[in-house]
Amino acid sequence: MLFLSDNAATVHPALWDAMRAADAPDAPYDGDAISAGLDERMSALFGRDCAVLWVATGTAANCLALATMVQPHGGVVCHREAHIEMDEGGAPGFFLHGAKLLLAEGEGAKLTPQAIRAVIDPIRDDVHQVQPHAISITQASEYGRSYRPEEVVAIAELARARGLGFHMDGARFGNAVAFLGCSAAEAAGPVDALSFGFVKNGGMSAEAIVFFDTALADVARYRRKRAGHLQSKGRYLAAQIHAMLDGDLWLANARAANAAAAEIASACGERLMYPVEANELFVRCSSTERETLRALGFGFYDWGDDAARFVTAWNTREDHARALSAAIGNL
Amino acid sequence: MLFLSDNAATVHPALWDAMRAADAPDAPYDGDAISAGLDERMSALFGRDCAVLWVATGTAANCLALATMVQPHGGVVCHREAHIEMDEGGAPGFFLHGAKLLLAEGEGAKLTPQAIRAVIDPIRDDVHQVQPHAISITQASEYGRSYRPEEVVAIAELARARGLGFHMDGARFGNAVAFLGCSAAEAAGPVDALSFGFVKNGGMSAEAIVFFDTALADVARYRRKRAGHLQSKGRYLAAQIHAMLDGDLWLANARAANAAAAEIASACGERLMYPVEANELFVRCSSTERETLRALGFGFYDWGDDAARFVTAWNTREDHARALSAAIGNL
Amino acid sequence: MLFLSDNAATVHPALWDAMRAADAPDAPYDGDAISAGLDERMSALFGRDCAVLWVATGTAANCLALATMVQPHGGVVCHREAHIEMDEGGAPGFFLHGAKLLLAEGEGAKLTPQAIRAVIDPIRDDVHQVQPHAISITQASEYGRSYRPEEVVAIAELARARGLGFHMDGARFGNAVAFLGCSAAEAAGPVDALSFGFVKNGGMSAEAIVFFDTALADVARYRRKRAGHLQSKGRYLAAQIHAMLDGDLWLANARAANAAAAEIASACGERLMYPVEANELFVRCSSTERETLRALGFGFYDWGDDAARFVTAWNTREDHARALSAAIGNL
Amino acid sequence: MLFLSDNAATVHPALWDAMRAADAPDAPYDGDAISAGLDERMSALFGRDCAVLWVATGTAANCLALATMVQPHGGVVCHREAHIEMDEGGAPGFFLHGAKLLLAEGEGAKLTPQAIRAVIDPIRDDVHQVQPHAISITQASEYGRSYRPEEVVAIAELARARGLGFHMDGARFGNAVAFLGCSAAEAAGPVDALSFGFVKNGGMSAEAIVFFDTALADVARYRRKRAGHLQSKGRYLAAQIHAMLDGDLWLANARAANAAAAEIASACGERLMYPVEANELFVRCSSTERETLRALGFGFYDWGDDAARFVTAWNTREDHARALSAAIGNL
Repeated sequence: MLFLSDNAATVHPALWDAMRAADAPDAPYDGDAISAGLDERMSALFGRDCAVLWVATGTAANCLALATMVQPHGGVVCHREAHIEMDEGGAPGFFLHGAKLLLAEGEGAKLTPQAIRAVIDPIRDDVHQVQPHAISITQASEYGRSYRPEEVVAIAELARARGLGFHMDGARFGNAVAFLGCSAAEAAGPVDALSFGFVKNGGMSAEAIVFFDTALADVARYRRKRAGHLQSKGRYLAAQIHAMLDGDLWLANARAANAAAAEIASACGERLMYPVEANELFVRCSSTERETLRALGFGFYDWGDDAARFVTAWNTREDHARALSAAIGNL
Repeated sequence: MLFLSDNAATVHPALWDAMRAADAPDAPYDGDAISAGLDERMSALFGRDCAVLWVATGTAANCLALATMVQPHGGVVCHREAHIEMDEGGAPGFFLHGAKLLLAEGEGAKLTPQAIRAVIDPIRDDVHQVQPHAISITQASEYGRSYRPEEVVAIAELARARGLGFHMDGARFGNAVAFLGCSAAEAAGPVDALSFGFVKNGGMSAEAIVFFDTALADVARYRRKRAGHLQSKGRYLAAQIHAMLDGDLWLANARAANAAAAEIASACGERLMYPVEANELFVRCSSTERETLRALGFGFYDWGDDAARFVTAWNTREDHARALSAAIGNL
Repeated sequence: MLFLSDNAATVHPALWDAMRAADAPDAPYDGDAISAGLDERMSALFGRDCAVLWVATGTAANCLALATMVQPHGGVVCHREAHIEMDEGGAPGFFLHGAKLLLAEGEGAKLTPQAIRAVIDPIRDDVHQVQPHAISITQASEYGRSYRPEEVVAIAELARARGLGFHMDGARFGNAVAFLGCSAAEAAGPVDALSFGFVKNGGMSAEAIVFFDTALADVARYRRKRAGHLQSKGRYLAAQIHAMLDGDLWLANARAANAAAAEIASACGERLMYPVEANELFVRCSSTERETLRALGFGFYDWGDDAARFVTAWNTREDHARALSAAIGNL
Repeated sequence: MLFLSDNAATVHPALWDAMRAADAPDAPYDGDAISAGLDERMSALFGRDCAVLWVATGTAANCLALATMVQPHGGVVCHREAHIEMDEGGAPGFFLHGAKLLLAEGEGAKLTPQAIRAVIDPIRDDVHQVQPHAISITQASEYGRSYRPEEVVAIAELARARGLGFHMDGARFGNAVAFLGCSAAEAAGPVDALSFGFVKNGGMSAEAIVFFDTALADVARYRRKRAGHLQSKGRYLAAQIHAMLDGDLWLANARAANAAAAEIASACGERLMYPVEANELFVRCSSTERETLRALGFGFYDWGDDAARFVTAWNTREDHARALSAAIGNL
């Protein structure tokens, strides 16, 4: 009964079918018909023109998106515990040619206009200090919290007022939309680019960079090739994304993961470090309690000395979730 | 009847099976058992210890390999028409942080010790000129020519004498081995790292960087993550490589492609710009002749004004190859 | 009566003389006799073999030194308020190709082994997090505090134990030596490279990078050229450094600056935010008090809302220092 | 009697005077009054608005200028023997973050629209090949040839038509103007940025980047700091440039150097590899002849096996030039 992460879950059957269906000769790279259809699909989903690039990883998606907004001498405001700061092996420094991450505070790894201003207002407007060029937020956040549409709008307004690009890391975007009960467009708000994640949500190897400012996509295409991320058989990635969009599979998968998380959360009460607004739970429990859970067959990560992290996925079995819920209730 | 490229051919059924077989929970990234088994497989194939990293593209494989051998202020000697120079969108400049490609001449896009010395000997040993740090050759070359084992050894000796790293771009390594009729170890010779390509040879999205100097692999692991190339579900890439190695499928596929190329070559006579030593043919023919071939249903690229390029793949049908052979004979 | 900074003070007459004396034809770049003599001079001063490169700025000195110790995928542990983090316009990101600064805490902008361990011990030893490659400290620190020789040794031991490079930003190294009353060798301790600053200490445009690990210098020479820092008339920079070393002018200048600072400090009592161990004073005073001082003709920077920063220089007049001391005493 | 290079010549007395005159307290970096006056001076010289940044080296000037025009994934068209390609230690790769130099042919190291088109027209407009972002020419060229105003205009028209930036490396710009007998504005033509060199023309350590597109200067200011090229006592650099502009000293110095070169050229006849249009001579002569000249006390560089390079400077003595002229005549 594994609750380690959603990032290694199996691939949804519909994606296998779609990839097999794509297994016919077509143009290489992103010249195939399947890749070419992505712009229209995403534009329909988001209700505004967008340009879509597939890549294989969230790290590549985030960094290629940011590279279109940030000059090498600039900076990106993000949360101190953002994935781009903590878990991407310095990829932003590579893709952005040494640009700097400017770290902001915020409960549950969420940013607010106030927190962003606390970082950028003290920066002297001179060449000795790195100037902000963009803001990046994570929807849902690294602690499984979702930005309400009005919160995204508020940050977008600050970005616009300060002339900053605005990027959303949506590695678990589906989970946020499922929790918020709003549209994808509302959950993304007026960002310039969204890393729309599918790998954690039942995909194999395809993420979408959705550029709402399509001029940025024209730059990103060159950067994607230059970073070795333009696969020659791109149709297999595009096929995964199409399959995810068909019948809103991405949303169904996310709802399933969220439901399992909610089932577990119902037993956690005061143990929860953060409200559960996606598919991750951060649960206070002692090392003895964690031993107890592991003895019962549950797999998960320690989160510091006094807590555990549980992540559900699109294919988490209901009986596993109920069992974990019960086990936590019995601690 | 498509002879455009092998880079968009369909995926071999055995690889689909292997990927489906890998579709069970396992550790993320390269922590899974399938990825972990690659070192042993490749060490067995090459008869010496090696460390293997999977990546999704040949560009990433080449550039990550070179980045372990070349400091940002150094240079890489390669052929003027090498893929890394001509067709990777400046990726070496990105991955190597501005290191320079030092371009050498050579028939059929092949380097020789003499051609390499012609480039590096005139470089003044001072800080004003970029010093060579590595040599990169392509096996088989961009014009479908294969290096004989002794030719690789001769370049390796020069590399060692000058303290240079030695990399082999093996996007079509299987085709070279199939042509040479030698072992993989002999075709690779004493290089430090080999980009062992599978995508053009029936793969979907997996290439192997084979480090014979395993200390380089320790650096490459960090660089792979930093470049966004560490996929979280890496087992699907590793599974493709295992399937390719099983029963030497890579060699069988390459032989099939080469056989189709040889069939076509048999009709070309003096039209051939280069001996056919892999699965690519560069065939002199006028625009009228190309029109004729296209009218007969053959797809291929023009190569300048007076030639055409035909590429066969693992799945090129024998009747297609025969038909093309006949059509060229009839021109 | 200016106490704004030492970084724009006038040039010491001995340096003008030395530059004029160098105004004869000689080999360009660092091929001249004056540049060639620096290694021996510095080796004599520090009592161990060293290799010296001149550059025009402290930013270049720091970053070129660090670039020899830190791979692009690595990190540099430094204080949260270190100059390389706060005031170099992102230069480390540029020179180190995206390597990351790992920020540590510490009173008075000084690091301790404990503070460094607090940063590096939690870094997971995997490719997802940026690994430390070097430590950089500032002697004297950004708050005018000097590391005692045993403090430098303790950090060096940690660096060695962890396999990290060790760099010292000595923009005000002379002031530290003057305060500590020890030798230059003791104040530098076992660092691998020292940015030995002269510009703030009466120089015009010359800083020395002193490499105690001379293999690093061989790399730095290429990087200096590549960064456009190899001046063709380098002898005028080398001449400044020689003049500074002649009769320990660097130490005399630093003592003069420190003495002026001590004079002012003597009137500050509890107002001092940090002990004065070099030529900088951070003095608590209200905005009204600062107005009073400015009305008396003193120039200085505000330091936040409740303090002022005063910096003395090699040429600070004694009567100015006494006047400021008296004025602060009268507040 | 040295004809090695102008790059290590002594400093003109007027510049010493100007630097000494600047030796008073002022604001650091480029905040001083002397630096602030440069825009106006250069705008007057060129008859159009420009923004001026000082730096210490031509390499920094060239690369900082180009970095404002070229994205990291783009390229710069330059001559195969351009200084940025041959003699800057890979600095363009560093400052431009891996952008590529696209090498064109041309007699005497001069480019023409035709030569540029021969490079850029074959570049496929796709992401696999590096696209040109700018053109850089050298005035006077690396072989001492000067572009006529109409030649610069023709290249500028091509640049505009293709949306490319246009940079001029003017390490010997004064020599070109002196030869052409036109205005500085005519010799620069409609470039976007000019590296206006002074170091080779009697300066110590100051070159000017003259931005005619002043928006580029706003970017370059950040990049200059980030590259460690913002000296804290910048007024000593600015003072050198002012002194050079006073009474057109730059032009007088260049004329003196050119006159010496012309004197020598008058004896060379068919020996000249290129017309002498600045202060460099490339003279065919055998190794025996070179020995003869050296035995007579002349210092110069060999240029390959069958030629010698002679460079005159602002302070080349007339009797030395006459002596060399005579000696060559006597060969």
